[in-house]
Amino acid sequence: MPLAPQFDNHFRATLADLFLWRRDVRHFRPDPLPLPVIQELLELANMAPSVGLSQPWRWVTVDVPDRRAAIVANFKEANDRALAEFDGARAALYARLKLAGLVEAPVHLAVFVDPKTQVGSGLGCATMPEMLPYSAVCAVHTLWLAARARGIGLGWVSILDPQQVIQELGVPHDWRLVAYLCLGYAEDEQDQPELEREGWAARQSLDNLLLHR
Amino acid sequence: MPLAPQFDNHFRATLADLFLWRRDVRHFRPDPLPLPVIQELLELANMAPSVGLSQPWRWVTVDVPDRRAAIVANFKEANDRALAEFDGARAALYARLKLAGLVEAPVHLAVFVDPKTQVGSGLGCATMPEMLPYSAVCAVHTLWLAARARGIGLGWVSILDPQQVIQELGVPHDWRLVAYLCLGYAEDEQDQPELEREGWAARQSLDNLLLHR
Repeated sequence: MPLAPQFDNHFRATLADLFLWRRDVRHFRPDPLPLPVIQELLELANMAPSVGLSQPWRWVTVDVPDRRAAIVANFKEANDRALAEFDGARAALYARLKLAGLVEAPVHLAVFVDPKTQVGSGLGCATMPEMLPYSAVCAVHTLWLAARARGIGLGWVSILDPQQVIQELGVPHDWRLVAYLCLGYAEDEQDQPELEREGWAARQSLDNLLLHR
Repeated sequence: MPLAPQFDNHFRATLADLFLWRRDVRHFRPDPLPLPVIQELLELANMAPSVGLSQPWRWVTVDVPDRRAAIVANFKEANDRALAEFDGARAALYARLKLAGLVEAPVHLAVFVDPKTQVGSGLGCATMPEMLPYSAVCAVHTLWLAARARGIGLGWVSILDPQQVIQELGVPHDWRLVAYLCLGYAEDEQDQPELEREGWAARQSLDNLLLHR
């Protein structure tokens, strides 16, 4: 039996730095990512927690130019609709934000969940079926942290019509889109979210988000 | 401006160990967790990614014995119903699995999402409103990894009636339960999921979960 690793203070401090400097990246350098690195990230993400050990995540790398173009158009349409919901200064600020890096990012990775998977026999899903997409989110977050620890940025694009993505990528109709990810080397490193720097929202302190019962 | 940290090979290897040895813990030692440690874990989780910088997670520590007893009863009822769905050897195996550590765990932490939060102004949620609970899942996973790096185990209990939990804890009716977590020192360290050791499910290799488009 392998010995359990000992995690020390130095590792914990570096892990806190990783949490602090992880960003939702929208500004990518066009340099390609080596395929073995992408494979390594996916292998790490495959160790994420999943309900009933179902591993319900399905990864789809998107490389065909026509498919990428369809995703870009999907985003533009959804983003224009979102912009139309804002007025005045808020609309002007929204329009200035860069909310995707789909054109520049060298890697597109779509993440789906298969809600009909039989693996795990439904354990832990009877009262909370959303545990299946939640498992896929844990896998995305694992990949995100592993990428950042390699100097690779990730951007999660949710301004998309998810049903349209399923059609555009030709994946099974009963899959459900969990995340559409851009990956690549970031143009710069930041410890502050771009939405905070741009004045879209301020970070809340924990005190306001914690109750005792 | 602070300098971006450099993550090295040693850190990346230790992070991979953390992913490998993170477990969904059901067997806790009763020793209490120091309050400053819980506070530190919550502060780290508060740095998790969130859609539109909404930080929609709401943490509730559950200490009142009557409330804990209600959660234990909620679990037992949901678990009995789940067991009734299995037959024969599968039912016998399910009955043998330990699927919660609610009685022994020194810390109970319920995690909700506030779907009506105005923070973030709905950015990124128009076509995928599930991004709000997904953000809370990222916070749970952040807390999970930070805990494990301190030798603290976390168990995610989803065999619960979520509406009942909202009533039992007296939180706003429009909140939505994302996770009910047990935290404490684990009885032992494992690199293999308990469901795999018990023969409930086998881990799938990445090849079967990856498509190219």
